[in-house]
Amino acid sequence: MKVAIIMGSNSDWPVLEAAEKTLKEFGVETEVVVASAHRTPDVVQNFAKGARDRGVEVIIAAAGAAAHLGGFIAAFTTVPVIGIPINATPLAGMDALLSFVQMPSGVPVATMAINGAKNAALFAIQILSVKYPELVEKLAEHRATMREEVRAKGEKLASMRGVPAQEFKDLHL
Amino acid sequence: MKVAIIMGSNSDWPVLEAAEKTLKEFGVETEVVVASAHRTPDVVQNFAKGARDRGVEVIIAAAGAAAHLGGFIAAFTTVPVIGIPINATPLAGMDALLSFVQMPSGVPVATMAINGAKNAALFAIQILSVKYPELVEKLAEHRATMREEVRAKGEKLASMRGVPAQEFKDLHL
Amino acid sequence: MKVAIIMGSNSDWPVLEAAEKTLKEFGVETEVVVASAHRTPDVVQNFAKGARDRGVEVIIAAAGAAAHLGGFIAAFTTVPVIGIPINATPLAGMDALLSFVQMPSGVPVATMAINGAKNAALFAIQILSVKYPELVEKLAEHRATMREEVRAKGEKLASMRGVPAQEFKDLHL
Amino acid sequence: MKVAIIMGSNSDWPVLEAAEKTLKEFGVETEVVVASAHRTPDVVQNFAKGARDRGVEVIIAAAGAAAHLGGFIAAFTTVPVIGIPINATPLAGMDALLSFVQMPSGVPVATMAINGAKNAALFAIQILSVKYPELVEKLAEHRATMREEVRAKGEKLASMRGVPAQEFKDLHL
Amino acid sequence: MKVAIIMGSNSDWPVLEAAEKTLKEFGVETEVVVASAHRTPDVVQNFAKGARDRGVEVIIAAAGAAAHLGGFIAAFTTVPVIGIPINATPLAGMDALLSFVQMPSGVPVATMAINGAKNAALFAIQILSVKYPELVEKLAEHRATMREEVRAKGEKLASMRGVPAQEFKDLHL
Amino acid sequence: MKVAIIMGSNSDWPVLEAAEKTLKEFGVETEVVVASAHRTPDVVQNFAKGARDRGVEVIIAAAGAAAHLGGFIAAFTTVPVIGIPINATPLAGMDALLSFVQMPSGVPVATMAINGAKNAALFAIQILSVKYPELVEKLAEHRATMREEVRAKGEKLASMRGVPAQEFKDLHL
Amino acid sequence: MKVAIIMGSNSDWPVLEAAEKTLKEFGVETEVVVASAHRTPDVVQNFAKGARDRGVEVIIAAAGAAAHLGGFIAAFTTVPVIGIPINATPLAGMDALLSFVQMPSGVPVATMAINGAKNAALFAIQILSVKYPELVEKLAEHRATMREEVRAKGEKLASMRGVPAQEFKDLHL
Amino acid sequence: MKVAIIMGSNSDWPVLEAAEKTLKEFGVETEVVVASAHRTPDVVQNFAKGARDRGVEVIIAAAGAAAHLGGFIAAFTTVPVIGIPINATPLAGMDALLSFVQMPSGVPVATMAINGAKNAALFAIQILSVKYPELVEKLAEHRATMREEVRAKGEKLASMRGVPAQEFKDLHL
Repeated sequence: MKVAIIMGSNSDWPVLEAAEKTLKEFGVETEVVVASAHRTPDVVQNFAKGARDRGVEVIIAAAGAAAHLGGFIAAFTTVPVIGIPINATPLAGMDALLSFVQMPSGVPVATMAINGAKNAALFAIQILSVKYPELVEKLAEHRATMREEVRAKGEKLASMRGVPAQEFKDLHL
Repeated sequence: MKVAIIMGSNSDWPVLEAAEKTLKEFGVETEVVVASAHRTPDVVQNFAKGARDRGVEVIIAAAGAAAHLGGFIAAFTTVPVIGIPINATPLAGMDALLSFVQMPSGVPVATMAINGAKNAALFAIQILSVKYPELVEKLAEHRATMREEVRAKGEKLASMRGVPAQEFKDLHL
Repeated sequence: MKVAIIMGSNSDWPVLEAAEKTLKEFGVETEVVVASAHRTPDVVQNFAKGARDRGVEVIIAAAGAAAHLGGFIAAFTTVPVIGIPINATPLAGMDALLSFVQMPSGVPVATMAINGAKNAALFAIQILSVKYPELVEKLAEHRATMREEVRAKGEKLASMRGVPAQEFKDLHL
Repeated sequence: MKVAIIMGSNSDWPVLEAAEKTLKEFGVETEVVVASAHRTPDVVQNFAKGARDRGVEVIIAAAGAAAHLGGFIAAFTTVPVIGIPINATPLAGMDALLSFVQMPSGVPVATMAINGAKNAALFAIQILSVKYPELVEKLAEHRATMREEVRAKGEKLASMRGVPAQEFKDLHL
Repeated sequence: MKVAIIMGSNSDWPVLEAAEKTLKEFGVETEVVVASAHRTPDVVQNFAKGARDRGVEVIIAAAGAAAHLGGFIAAFTTVPVIGIPINATPLAGMDALLSFVQMPSGVPVATMAINGAKNAALFAIQILSVKYPELVEKLAEHRATMREEVRAKGEKLASMRGVPAQEFKDLHL
Repeated sequence: MKVAIIMGSNSDWPVLEAAEKTLKEFGVETEVVVASAHRTPDVVQNFAKGARDRGVEVIIAAAGAAAHLGGFIAAFTTVPVIGIPINATPLAGMDALLSFVQMPSGVPVATMAINGAKNAALFAIQILSVKYPELVEKLAEHRATMREEVRAKGEKLASMRGVPAQEFKDLHL
Repeated sequence: MKVAIIMGSNSDWPVLEAAEKTLKEFGVETEVVVASAHRTPDVVQNFAKGARDRGVEVIIAAAGAAAHLGGFIAAFTTVPVIGIPINATPLAGMDALLSFVQMPSGVPVATMAINGAKNAALFAIQILSVKYPELVEKLAEHRATMREEVRAKGEKLASMRGVPAQEFKDLHL
Repeated sequence: MKVAIIMGSNSDWPVLEAAEKTLKEFGVETEVVVASAHRTPDVVQNFAKGARDRGVEVIIAAAGAAAHLGGFIAAFTTVPVIGIPINATPLAGMDALLSFVQMPSGVPVATMAINGAKNAALFAIQILSVKYPELVEKLAEHRATMREEVRAKGEKLASMRGVPAQEFKDLHL
């Protein structure tokens, strides 16, 4: 199980770190690459063309501004490409979002929310779960953990407001 | 190999037909369902919870307006969900796009372009190709066909403009 | 008289606190719940389905990003749902606003301004005032208080500018 | 049970007709008024100030462009005001939507989708249902009818596609 | 020569101060009022209806969010109303801009840039200059001062860059 | 009393015709000019610099796309300039609106709604009314006519719906 | 003098025809190519890498949706690339505009208006005029022709309105 | 080789400094001017009309808000004009972007990203490279430097993550 994360600049890493962290928690091997569609197109091309041979099963591409990285990679491979629009210009990521999501017919890029690094990792894992049944179980555990976190947040808020958390417990039955 | 296509109303079918057509061309079995997150939430929930057991490996959800269908389904299953925002209101699909793509952390929906039904099918096939190697070959053939179509369009335009298509041939080498 | 306030995360509480405060000032009982449409869909569903039986007469739902919480709840109950889009992503709440307000025909969610917690509470009170006549009087008093606050602001500005506040007084006749 | 529908121009009637039709189906009395916040402010003011005395329990206000009608009415009454932004300018209703929904703190207007006349009526009915229990039952019936309509659409699509509708039936259990 | 400045809240004063300062520099009398279209509609109405009798020749109205103040005033007077959309919500003033500028046919509000207080004052002065010829001269002097300021900025930049300002002088011939 | 109407192309005339018609109804002399800020900058400059001497008291400038015409004129005269953004590109007039309204500090252009030709004429008349008292009366008559038109529309709708128009009459008292 | 025009699909030709026509009027040789950044990336790459050797001095790239064509080409050549965003999706060309214009630092694409084919050609000619002085003269003639066209439009409008065109003549002095 | 940089205010210099720096690195002479389309239109006109005679071969114009500077200059010269929309208002540069890029047919302005000063300089150099072959070589070197920088960033990230940079090296082959 191997997922590649590629970004145009290491300035995107603070956002993307969450993606690698999540992948590792699920036991997925990662390959992390800095390469730019416009500044190092040959590197990106090598990256994309060789992805399947290197065992990469899903690619996560993150970019800001006129974010061509996802489309550029998808043009050179049929490995599924997940795009993360980065909020990197005064337009608050709307430019990157449209550059990722509005791919013309024939070459899709699956787009996540602006700065949605964790969800990119989770979606990559969901893709892998189609092939690797052990991930189905782990995804279910992850959902259970999230449920528990939400419940804990509810209890914490109840405590802040000075009321008993009983009502939340009933809803959780 | 089985992909489910779910839509809020059969008025979306003229857009979605291209998705089923593409899936069939790749030999992927389809399940096509009309159900609404808001009008038939129990049906959608049954659809989502039972998807993996019915052998559904990827879900394609299409909706317009405040398009909650993708998120609603993703909340009840870890089968990968691909979202198609439908242009169905005066806001030209921007409402549906943001309702699909801006999913909060923890439960991703992979979003395609507005009305991007064919790309949703192709991305579903790319997901399946992680597991089914025969699809890798078929995807490569599909890319080759697209290349040929673009070349033919170029020749047609050259012919319309009354110039030889030689220059295009050179670029295709 | 009982209004429920539900939010996807306790990080929304600093915005929502104003809603509970206003409801209490009008003597309305509150139920405050943290639950996520995507992370704890079953809890939200229990919350919605049982609302009327728990005596909840109006529901205030707050969420950011692809804010499905309001629509999700409205799908499972006919208790009136008021939505507060939260400014929680780089898109400044526009994503949440469209996800709340553009509900398709059949299942409405009454949407307030981005971060409009106080207005959500006031609108809930206006709904309750249809049934409980004592609230009509209290709403009139609240309006009078607001008028007085605006007048006081005008006097304060006059004082800052070193002019007599006489002109404002005349307008208030 | 009485709901007033007010609009700036009778050119909005083709959109609003659905609201009156829905209200009548639920047995709600209607009052339909043409008045403009800017062209007949005194009429609107009379309309708003006298609403409660005329027995109006909910007001539905529809307007396009810089849609001030909802806010103007809400300034003169505490009867709940539901706003319908009308798509009436090149900006596709976005101007009307923001003019309705972004009401400043203190005087709420509950906003529906652009051209969302039917939902405005349904929300008015949900408000009335807080006081009139017989409407709770009727709302449940309306939801059941919608579920049936969605099911019928699914069967129709199955028939169009030449497949048995069995799968939908199972989901409806 | 008298111009009224009206704002929904004294929190807008830091923006509007520039308007009063400019009006005073041109010798125009000002009337500064805090009143809210929604919270003190009667005050705004008194303000608007009596404006011409109080000798007000131009009204400057500033508001944020769903900025109805300009349209509300214009509905009750034919004194020219200039609108200043205030950046007061997460939508960066776009909501207020559309609420001011998209006035329906019949009742205009002349809209300035978001937070454009100084330009509102200058436009009020240009309106007054139609009647008061002495202002034509003062406006010409103001333009000359602006030209000089731009020239000085150019020289300052030249100095910062360590180059002679000669080239700017030539352009100013 | 003289108002100039200037437009970049005679293709804008179908929109602007309403402005000239309104001005004539109020007895205002008009000067109608086709000139382009970018294609005939010298003509526009001559137009602007000579406006006051030709007796022009208000200028109405209409343009689509990157609508610089208003700002260009305002740079060469202090006669008040009213801008009409024209819906002339795929961006539905939003480009022209921002190009008119967001004028930097020092040189204002008073902006109307997209395609708001009639309001531009009415605002020009309101400006002139500061100087010419006879227009104040005419503006009041125009408002009365509009009120009557709204009332007539209300009666027409009542008649269409088969209900007596009594309720509207009461509101008009 | 040679300019290449490249587009993703021959469906863009009705828009782009104006570009070739303009280039031919100025005596500039053209090379017209259909190639897609995503469907035929190798062709686009060959096109870009060989452009300078084929004598191409400026490249005009047109694309709709997530328009990566301009950035893709610019990544493989330093020949100046002019981008034309095509209005080809429900988002009215805004997606293509941002995908072209928001290029990250290092690899520029000079962007024209949505569907701005003629301007792309004129800008290419202006670039060539830096090297080929004969084009400076031709550009001046083109400007003169445009001026004449605007004047003729003014006369035509005067004639339609039944007034003498004298006023336009004076402005043209 | 000479490029002029013109801006409406020296407050834009912190953004534009990068443009001059880049031009100097390529050995291009610069002329830097502060002048405002609206406040010093005559200076801008002198600047534009005399540009070719002063040896200016490309003009870079930067402005925020309703950014008319580029169009104003282009109206008076056929020297190529590159526009830089400046993020200077609450609208985050979107106003300036549309004011630059949506130029009507006949007078183009080549638009860069919001605040895209470095790219403006690089594009000016690419224009000059059509005439001055020595710049072609320097542009290639600049691209090589950028490639090296991206590679270095990748190594730095690998080092931060504690993994060998070998994988990046392979891609760079």
